[in-house]
Amino acid sequence: MFNGEIEKVVRGKLDDLTKPPGSLGYLEEIVIQYAKITGKTSFKLPLKKFIFVFCGDHGIAEEGVSAYPQEVTYQMVLNFLRGGAAINVIGQHVGADVFVVDVGVARDFEVESEKFFARKINYGTKNFLKEPAMTEDEAKKSIDIGKEMADFAKQNNADLVIPGDMGIANTTPSSALISFITEQPAEKVVGRGTGIDDEKLKKKVQVVESAISRWKPKNGFDALCKFGGYEIGAIAGLILGCAENRIPVVLDGLISLAGFCVAWSINPKVKDFVFAGHKTAEPGGNVVLSFLGLRPILDLDMRLGEGTGGALASFIIETSLKIYMQMATFSSAGVSKSLQS
Amino acid sequence: MFNGEIEKVVRGKLDDLTKPPGSLGYLEEIVIQYAKITGKTSFKLPLKKFIFVFCGDHGIAEEGVSAYPQEVTYQMVLNFLRGGAAINVIGQHVGADVFVVDVGVARDFEVESEKFFARKINYGTKNFLKEPAMTEDEAKKSIDIGKEMADFAKQNNADLVIPGDMGIANTTPSSALISFITEQPAEKVVGRGTGIDDEKLKKKVQVVESAISRWKPKNGFDALCKFGGYEIGAIAGLILGCAENRIPVVLDGLISLAGFCVAWSINPKVKDFVFAGHKTAEPGGNVVLSFLGLRPILDLDMRLGEGTGGALASFIIETSLKIYMQMATFSSAGVSKSLQS
Repeated sequence: MFNGEIEKVVRGKLDDLTKPPGSLGYLEEIVIQYAKITGKTSFKLPLKKFIFVFCGDHGIAEEGVSAYPQEVTYQMVLNFLRGGAAINVIGQHVGADVFVVDVGVARDFEVESEKFFARKINYGTKNFLKEPAMTEDEAKKSIDIGKEMADFAKQNNADLVIPGDMGIANTTPSSALISFITEQPAEKVVGRGTGIDDEKLKKKVQVVESAISRWKPKNGFDALCKFGGYEIGAIAGLILGCAENRIPVVLDGLISLAGFCVAWSINPKVKDFVFAGHKTAEPGGNVVLSFLGLRPILDLDMRLGEGTGGALASFIIETSLKIYMQMATFSSAGVSKSLQS
Repeated sequence: MFNGEIEKVVRGKLDDLTKPPGSLGYLEEIVIQYAKITGKTSFKLPLKKFIFVFCGDHGIAEEGVSAYPQEVTYQMVLNFLRGGAAINVIGQHVGADVFVVDVGVARDFEVESEKFFARKINYGTKNFLKEPAMTEDEAKKSIDIGKEMADFAKQNNADLVIPGDMGIANTTPSSALISFITEQPAEKVVGRGTGIDDEKLKKKVQVVESAISRWKPKNGFDALCKFGGYEIGAIAGLILGCAENRIPVVLDGLISLAGFCVAWSINPKVKDFVFAGHKTAEPGGNVVLSFLGLRPILDLDMRLGEGTGGALASFIIETSLKIYMQMATFSSAGVSKSLQS
């Protein structure tokens, strides 16, 4: 079916459920969007949800743009694998599997786990104030790893995919990518990340400004090479791969949206295959949402990353599909459809 | 513990979880609010959630203010009891029990169910353009039934209560109550309810305006008597009773907020015992949220009632508490707390 037909079928069924037409608001639009992405008008529930937390380090951390030491990336990977992080709690609560993918953490892991993918490209990116964060080959590899995960999701019949991230200092390259791709000034995009003070914030804006003017990227992919990082490239690849596989993606916050910008600059059609999970407290996230006209499902001032906002929003998507699949119709329930019926 | 101490304990624990302080935004405030209401700093999960859908008819329906015939109230009660309505699907999805309370439906039920409370006060309210919707005694009864349900919730160890409603034409008395209590003009409060056209909308504004100027209520309770209805009084009673029992209440949309206004006019302290579940698409709902400075958890253009928005928001509250109870701390996970540690 073409999208127009799918929308007609789905809206027709939604209007026949025992509720005033349109009264479930955005939930109804979510069902239509989900149907268009998957090409289906009937859904098996509960949804199989996969969260991929891509992890990598950033050379730019040495410029003092984060409130945390680089070591925390490594420590948090172990925390993810032990189930102690926010994404684990939310993942469990919404019934999602959490996979952790090392694409570029600065330390080695000795981990044996079905939930861990060892795909290290390098031990962190380079400091992009001094040299390009990644080589072209590395950037391509990062995208390919994301696509590999999209294929893994497809092989395992995932119905919904949520990209997540961990990487100390990664709001800085994300802000640079967003500022460059959306053509918005750094000061509108850069935020406090994990919670930096005014002085560091000023520094972070300068870092982003001078990096963009120094490297003058040719396009989104080139910007990815110049600013990094591995996990952002992997998110872009995951989005591109899921779009190809017709698996809906629920975007998280700033890092996720930076990866989305890269994917969109490679193939603008990806826009039709994603949901904006939430409105992050990071200003750069909203720059992307406005730029591409995406409506966030949640608005809770979250700014944690890891995929937390996307995972939480996946619950709303699942609710929408349950309503569509499980509610009674006017005729089956013997409810009058209007004053005329 | 006093509220100040509770906040200190809870915020202290939140800041020790493996995430940047405050990075879960409103989720963290929700935990603090929940702790203050219950007086507890540790929570048993999953939460036991009770939804009470109060159902009643309205004499004002004969003025043609709804898109549906009055019969639909009765039909929807049967739909609730068979599990086919939106509130059933959402209730099941968030793990809540759905109780249906007949406080004034125009037809009799022959129902035997643990989930059904037969508490009919009368067969619908009177048309408040011609006479007061309810007698003072009836209004008191409706509030008492709500309090009875709050006590039922307490006896059954409910951790969270969501008021719901069903009553064809009930956005009209709700708008009148809200317009009167918040002192905002009818045209700012009245919306399209189930989906009325421009002509009916104009009529509905006139109905609300003339009712307020005719009855000139002395206070919120008097307004409840004059405009009705039974389910709105019951919601007010439920809120008052839950506040007394320290059970947090998640408000739904317009009808729920009208009941809340009545409860607030009786005892303004109830404001500290509720969560605003969502920002309804009905303009009157937002008038209340602004008037009382409540922040809605969700904003999804829902306007269905039944408790649907409140039930969906209860999931976010539960997520917040799970994060608080289940995440690892910096020390337990071996994660560095800052650049200094």
